[in-house]
Amino acid sequence: MGGAEVFSSHTPLREGVEFDVVRRFLSRWGRSASGIGDDAAVLDATGEGNLIATTDSSVENVHFRRDWLTAHEVGYRAAASSLSDLAAMGASPIGILCAVVIPSSWLEESELIADGIADAARASSTVILGGDLSSGGELSITVSALGVARRPLLRSTAKHGDFVYVTGRLGGPSTAISTLLDGNVPAANHRDRFARPIPRIKEALWLAERGVAACIDISDGLIADLGHVAAASDVSISIDLERIPAIEGVSQLDAVASGEEYELAVTSSEELDAKEFVTRFGVELTRIGNVSAGTEKLMLLDHGVRIEPPPGYLHFSK
Amino acid sequence: MGGAEVFSSHTPLREGVEFDVVRRFLSRWGRSASGIGDDAAVLDATGEGNLIATTDSSVENVHFRRDWLTAHEVGYRAAASSLSDLAAMGASPIGILCAVVIPSSWLEESELIADGIADAARASSTVILGGDLSSGGELSITVSALGVARRPLLRSTAKHGDFVYVTGRLGGPSTAISTLLDGNVPAANHRDRFARPIPRIKEALWLAERGVAACIDISDGLIADLGHVAAASDVSISIDLERIPAIEGVSQLDAVASGEEYELAVTSSEELDAKEFVTRFGVELTRIGNVSAGTEKLMLLDHGVRIEPPPGYLHFSK
Repeated sequence: MGGAEVFSSHTPLREGVEFDVVRRFLSRWGRSASGIGDDAAVLDATGEGNLIATTDSSVENVHFRRDWLTAHEVGYRAAASSLSDLAAMGASPIGILCAVVIPSSWLEESELIADGIADAARASSTVILGGDLSSGGELSITVSALGVARRPLLRSTAKHGDFVYVTGRLGGPSTAISTLLDGNVPAANHRDRFARPIPRIKEALWLAERGVAACIDISDGLIADLGHVAAASDVSISIDLERIPAIEGVSQLDAVASGEEYELAVTSSEELDAKEFVTRFGVELTRIGNVSAGTEKLMLLDHGVRIEPPPGYLHFSK
Repeated sequence: MGGAEVFSSHTPLREGVEFDVVRRFLSRWGRSASGIGDDAAVLDATGEGNLIATTDSSVENVHFRRDWLTAHEVGYRAAASSLSDLAAMGASPIGILCAVVIPSSWLEESELIADGIADAARASSTVILGGDLSSGGELSITVSALGVARRPLLRSTAKHGDFVYVTGRLGGPSTAISTLLDGNVPAANHRDRFARPIPRIKEALWLAERGVAACIDISDGLIADLGHVAAASDVSISIDLERIPAIEGVSQLDAVASGEEYELAVTSSEELDAKEFVTRFGVELTRIGNVSAGTEKLMLLDHGVRIEPPPGYLHFSK
């Protein structure tokens, strides 16, 4: 049995409060909680591989505002976020379960929400296995995703000497959110990365087949999430700022702090074929740093000179 | 692949609206929804049996009011409700995933909620595999449960000639809720059935081993849920009112309409050993009716005379 990311990311409570509540839950659960600390739970192996399970909620005014997204995007995004946790584990989806709490003010748009959820499932070549519908005072969509992994990708397996890679181009989601919070219209390419994140399922399977060591999906920001990998693996990770693939219109410093990216960061003892990757998936794979045995968990370097990392991504909340 | 109870019960939207929204979701999902219609999804067989998956939300002011339950009971009940769907499928739990949306007004009691969830897991001899924590305006707890069933118990497999049985004594939960809605204090035995329902996991495995035909857990009321079985199995089910095991202080007519019982109703071509059942589990097993080939889906008989069934259980909402 491996473990699940119980209350460690996707948890937009106010800082301090968040960690306090997480700590309280974990301290109470004790031995009832079965192995904690990755993007999803790894269950006993079946004939096909390990069963992988994860759950993720998307709540109005916490993860998004109604005037920022269409109802279709709200449904799509909720499902994509959970499917991205399967990708982070190198799992092929079996299906998703959707629990929707819907207030009367959203009833008119329920079909669009349903369409968005189904589109996210289809885009990851998977199905909706079941769900639950309830009324409530605010819209929240909880998607649980099940998958199977021949070789689950963990956070705790980065090794001294590994190279660090990231998929895609970072910075779109947080730039879109900042722009929206300022009351302005975000650039289309930034908004698209926020409204329609793409779980890197196929990409993760390719990476798993090539024997990558550790893997995480970027929800708290590259720096913060690689910090989780470094802590779980008890290694030091250094990132070269000048190598960061930032989306057009975003600085590399903003890109390393951007959350809700749902891109993958991996470590690998072998060099990966970035050219084959982009040809196959139409998505870039960029080498951005190295893993070493140092005690410093996460170092950000600008042309070799160590700089202070930007503060971790603060999930939008109200 | 079997199917999941997508949006068919545990769905306390206003009548009319509920079915309308359910219909809209299902019509939009089309082939993306993989086999709908039971208490949980039945997935492809592994070495141990079929994988079973279900999800269920518990929302403040929809499923309970804060002054009705302790925080511990709120957590316990949310997990028990989802585990009961595994029981209805004859599945042994593998574990649960918990997504908790928690408003600041509940933060002080988060440990008690966590305790309640863990107690429900322990009571069903299972573990918490992972979860997600988010802030929000109202408390909602979505528990997804995974299990494995050597022989999944479906709703669609009742046969002409089967006997109908029910576990436990019915009527406690709805009587407790009515009393609470009237501003009075419910009897301890009624309140206990509402606040601490017991998923009949071990009992369901015993029933599955004895080859029962169809099985459902009672969430919408015995009459309504056996109506689901009759419809799914295309049979007629008759219930003898005078046989109904009602909890002390509740009429048999109220007992057949009481929802959120989480007792099991099963059909079986063979007579079941009720004496062994009560000795083994400390819970009664009562023969209450018969399955026939008629076109009338559900008939309620009072000493052989057909009577009008009471209206279906209306889930509490605000």
